[in-house]
Amino acid sequence: MYLEDIPYPDALDRFENALRKAGLWGLLGSESIPLGINLLGRILAEPVWAKISSPHYHAAAMDGFAVRAVDTEGALSTQPLSLKVVDQAVYVDTGDPLPETADAVIPIENVEPLDESGKSADQIRAPHSIRIRAAVNPWMHVRPMGEDIVASQLVLPAGQKLRPIDLGVIAASGSSQVVAARLPKVAILPTGSELIPVGSPIAAGEIIEFNRLVLASQVQEWGGEATQLPIIEDDFDRIYDAVRQAALEHDLVLISAGSSAGSEDYSAPVVEALGEMLVHGVAVRPGHPVILGMIHLDQQGNPLGSVEVASKSTPIIGVPGYPVSAALTGELFVEPLLSRWLGRPALNPRQIKATLTRKITSPAGDDDYVRVALGRVGKRVLAAPLARGAGVITSLVRADGLAIFPRGSQGKPAGDEVDVRLYRSEAEIDNTIFATGSHDISIDIMAQFLYKQGRRMAVANVGSLAGLVALSKGEAHLAGSHLLDPESGEYNLAYIEEYLPGVPLQVIALVGRSQGLLIRKDNPKGIQSLVDLSREEVTFVNRQRGSGTRVLLDYQLGLLGISPGQIRGYQNQEYTHLAVGAAIVSGRADCGIGIAAVTQSLDLDFIPLFEERYDLIIPQEYRRSRLLQPLIDLLDNKEFKEMVAGLPGYEVAQMGTLIAELN
Amino acid sequence: MYLEDIPYPDALDRFENALRKAGLWGLLGSESIPLGINLLGRILAEPVWAKISSPHYHAAAMDGFAVRAVDTEGALSTQPLSLKVVDQAVYVDTGDPLPETADAVIPIENVEPLDESGKSADQIRAPHSIRIRAAVNPWMHVRPMGEDIVASQLVLPAGQKLRPIDLGVIAASGSSQVVAARLPKVAILPTGSELIPVGSPIAAGEIIEFNRLVLASQVQEWGGEATQLPIIEDDFDRIYDAVRQAALEHDLVLISAGSSAGSEDYSAPVVEALGEMLVHGVAVRPGHPVILGMIHLDQQGNPLGSVEVASKSTPIIGVPGYPVSAALTGELFVEPLLSRWLGRPALNPRQIKATLTRKITSPAGDDDYVRVALGRVGKRVLAAPLARGAGVITSLVRADGLAIFPRGSQGKPAGDEVDVRLYRSEAEIDNTIFATGSHDISIDIMAQFLYKQGRRMAVANVGSLAGLVALSKGEAHLAGSHLLDPESGEYNLAYIEEYLPGVPLQVIALVGRSQGLLIRKDNPKGIQSLVDLSREEVTFVNRQRGSGTRVLLDYQLGLLGISPGQIRGYQNQEYTHLAVGAAIVSGRADCGIGIAAVTQSLDLDFIPLFEERYDLIIPQEYRRSRLLQPLIDLLDNKEFKEMVAGLPGYEVAQMGTLIAELN
Repeated sequence: MYLEDIPYPDALDRFENALRKAGLWGLLGSESIPLGINLLGRILAEPVWAKISSPHYHAAAMDGFAVRAVDTEGALSTQPLSLKVVDQAVYVDTGDPLPETADAVIPIENVEPLDESGKSADQIRAPHSIRIRAAVNPWMHVRPMGEDIVASQLVLPAGQKLRPIDLGVIAASGSSQVVAARLPKVAILPTGSELIPVGSPIAAGEIIEFNRLVLASQVQEWGGEATQLPIIEDDFDRIYDAVRQAALEHDLVLISAGSSAGSEDYSAPVVEALGEMLVHGVAVRPGHPVILGMIHLDQQGNPLGSVEVASKSTPIIGVPGYPVSAALTGELFVEPLLSRWLGRPALNPRQIKATLTRKITSPAGDDDYVRVALGRVGKRVLAAPLARGAGVITSLVRADGLAIFPRGSQGKPAGDEVDVRLYRSEAEIDNTIFATGSHDISIDIMAQFLYKQGRRMAVANVGSLAGLVALSKGEAHLAGSHLLDPESGEYNLAYIEEYLPGVPLQVIALVGRSQGLLIRKDNPKGIQSLVDLSREEVTFVNRQRGSGTRVLLDYQLGLLGISPGQIRGYQNQEYTHLAVGAAIVSGRADCGIGIAAVTQSLDLDFIPLFEERYDLIIPQEYRRSRLLQPLIDLLDNKEFKEMVAGLPGYEVAQMGTLIAELN
Repeated sequence: MYLEDIPYPDALDRFENALRKAGLWGLLGSESIPLGINLLGRILAEPVWAKISSPHYHAAAMDGFAVRAVDTEGALSTQPLSLKVVDQAVYVDTGDPLPETADAVIPIENVEPLDESGKSADQIRAPHSIRIRAAVNPWMHVRPMGEDIVASQLVLPAGQKLRPIDLGVIAASGSSQVVAARLPKVAILPTGSELIPVGSPIAAGEIIEFNRLVLASQVQEWGGEATQLPIIEDDFDRIYDAVRQAALEHDLVLISAGSSAGSEDYSAPVVEALGEMLVHGVAVRPGHPVILGMIHLDQQGNPLGSVEVASKSTPIIGVPGYPVSAALTGELFVEPLLSRWLGRPALNPRQIKATLTRKITSPAGDDDYVRVALGRVGKRVLAAPLARGAGVITSLVRADGLAIFPRGSQGKPAGDEVDVRLYRSEAEIDNTIFATGSHDISIDIMAQFLYKQGRRMAVANVGSLAGLVALSKGEAHLAGSHLLDPESGEYNLAYIEEYLPGVPLQVIALVGRSQGLLIRKDNPKGIQSLVDLSREEVTFVNRQRGSGTRVLLDYQLGLLGISPGQIRGYQNQEYTHLAVGAAIVSGRADCGIGIAAVTQSLDLDFIPLFEERYDLIIPQEYRRSRLLQPLIDLLDNKEFKEMVAGLPGYEVAQMGTLIAELN
């Protein structure tokens, strides 16, 4: 058994052909449902035609007197005319039906009510007669029957996803039932001996099973009805029985994990035993080891070789186990099938052009989907690639879109335009503050505060120096930086002069914070200062080159006369304080350099070494923008300041202070 | 009692202040919910922090042997090195945890398995030892603990609306419960003696109550929990009791209709009797007679004058009765309140610039929201204003957005840019075929077919001639036209020469159809031909000037020597065949001119007069576009042809024939 490499469109074609043969390429069925809120989001299987007109009678559009227009002919301001009430004129409120004989309404303010003697009457609604001083045309101040809806007209097309106002127009046009597409029933069957359910205690080698929940949620969002089946261990017979049962009772079976071609991968053999394998391996990344197949069963649920003799044919999709692959498989294969079964257009996410912030290499044989964070900086939408591993679920959570590198492309350099399929609306992207530079915990807290004010923050933790470079290329709205200039003892300004010459900007203090040695709990190796880093038995974990912390470290090591070669682990680089902490907690290193606040979340010891200032560097064009205003306001927000000041080793005395302004 | 005219932002401010005083301007509450599909779409009330790392152990990233990197030092291709299995090397599958002492994985393909005698072993997974020819660095081919998620890191922010992938990352980070915002409970209370429930038989003067359903659906879409209360007749005491009860049991009361200042409008008096009136009348159109108020009750539900002494304060919104006003009131006042209570950012629909296709006049004192259909034609997005009456619910169903004419603006001429708040995604707008010109039923059927292929049709029924003018201004992708040139007996070409000189385009036949006299059922006035239109007792309903049908009529009347002055009702113009039919059915006219197909949906008689051809006129730049391809393909679609041919008086022999091509 080996994996194929079938291009995505060809895979879809094979699937469609098999579904056509089985009579499963179209609306699955429909049901008549009484009009109610439970129809919200359902898909119309049949058009709605108006049963009545709206208004369904000729209705007065003003308060006044309903008259026959012909009776008013000849009335002039100089030659008033009287109409006898009830015989020739009938009082109507707005919305009242016109009397059978009337064809116009004279507004109350254009009428003189008269009593029997011909004098002004008090009884304005029921006078003896009315005097008018102008003729009216037929149908004046009348909402004629059918003004809004004409009985028999098309009100809503088949395929429409019902919105609140649609439920209103269905009622207005006289229907109290609608025919909606039947919900496709989708079984989701997780397999794998290493899987444990959400909420169980977990041991090394075990994996929390959540693809089932993600797939079920996708199915529900796309208009299907998901059944989450229990986890099945890696055992051919058990998987065979479960798939057979699921196929009998559902319209579609998703079998999660075990879709590759290894010795413990049973999805493909089970599909082959129960029906036909259509596709095993699609040329997409992530998501390559997908299975598309058809199960063919008789009435008792026995497998039959082909669609011709089967009494129940059920499509099955083998979904790869890596979470990013699983979610993408849902988008690529499950959603189009559900849309077809529901009779609605396939969801077609908007694609835009965006500028890559760093180089992407891509396998030429595959359609490659790279998760990206998006933000509009100046006139360009920037796409910052996120972690690419199919196991990195946070990359999908943080993704604003998928940059697509089609088959044949080997990737693109930074600065090139790519096609990006959007996960978010452009309104959200326009409200995204694209931050770069150094990582600080107060930026995460800032993101929390800004979120409720309609601003998202997309943060690329590239380090202080790379942040300045990104600003110089117009690739961010602001950068966080804590670059010490050893000569002056000042932060950031010397580097700004070098990397951002002539750029109008502000340097605004954010926090002061304590940097030092992060050490395994209880300090088993007795580390006391930077000098200990050169000890043979001490393993260090470093920060990446260009980070403010690294600059600080290298400066201090130079003062102490310690060379990098003397430090075990100096080459191991992490990109955030938290990642350094995690490396120590997990035993990959004994110590690292970072901020005290990491000890709040990770169980580590800390030896303070220096106090430093962390600034925000903001080009003037963004500093004064509507986009950044809530962020600027936040620097003066008491609640925010208190929360940041509560972090270990933080102080906020200078927060918001203008350190330098360059114009 | 009279209506105020309070600007929208001021109205919101008053509401916010009153809610603040009552402690109701923020998260209403939260609840802990086990992780499951029912959390989809819920809003996080608290951030999710990672409880475990992911991977939560050092995991093999390849199938191979886990080793200590230090044991591999010195291995070269020329100087291989052996490691003893189990002591120095342990077989691992991808995903397996590394043994305690190991810190790297050597992929299986880089290893020679050896037996006890030092020869190649068959047992690849459990040999006696392995031979390697290269050293490995620490952490090679290992997914270190925390690569995706570091325990303690922020996984999802408060305020996040949970998507499928979010449920996955919550599980991956070790949580099995989340704290979600409590669903705001919203009571919806329809009032009005003229209201009848959906599904009841209807009489003149009665109105089907559906605003309740629309408002409840809006509330549900925006994350609230709606209670639809029974209809209450216009009676102060009953409304008072119902509002009191609803206010005790809910977070918000929406009282539908009766919000104006007329004698039968009880919403305002009830609000004043039960608490405080904050705003009565907002300077927006539609939606002007809105009420914003607060109900203050003691524990027994007795009204109290003010928030200070109340044990339960409940905001109340009086929603105007016209359906368009009601829906807009939901958007303007209910949605922002729910977003605040749920702790999420307010929905902020994207605004774009679009070009008005016709002049709009607007009251300077109000924010005026004009429903528009949108389509991208060439480089511009066009906004075609829809019917403006607050009672015309179809205008809201058809609307792709709201063009905003802010206070101070008196409107704009055709061709000007306006701000449009989008109801649809730009992807949908980009997939909209903007059709203009004459109305034909086959176009409605076409729209149905195209909808499932991801194309929407926005159709402006302006008449044939106006359609050509619109094309000349670049305001549509195509126009339907059936303009007879009396001199040549040919359709459309002479008019195209006059109105679209030099424009490269194709004229493609769509249908042949039968035009004639539409007459009230059983022809009570004995109408036989156009000559009867001049009879005194016959009332005619006309089509608008510039429509092909009108051109045909005027030409035929000329031949017969009948002048417009001789025809009663000649000035009454309708814009579609169906509207002409409706005017006859409703008794506004005895006859009109139109196509036979109208008799399929309306109970009318028909006297055929002439056969005509109806063409599509498509500029070349759109004729060959991806957008229009499905439409062009449809002209050759058997199912479509058959459905159109089935309409009374239609024939499709020429459908798709190229009548003329101008380059």
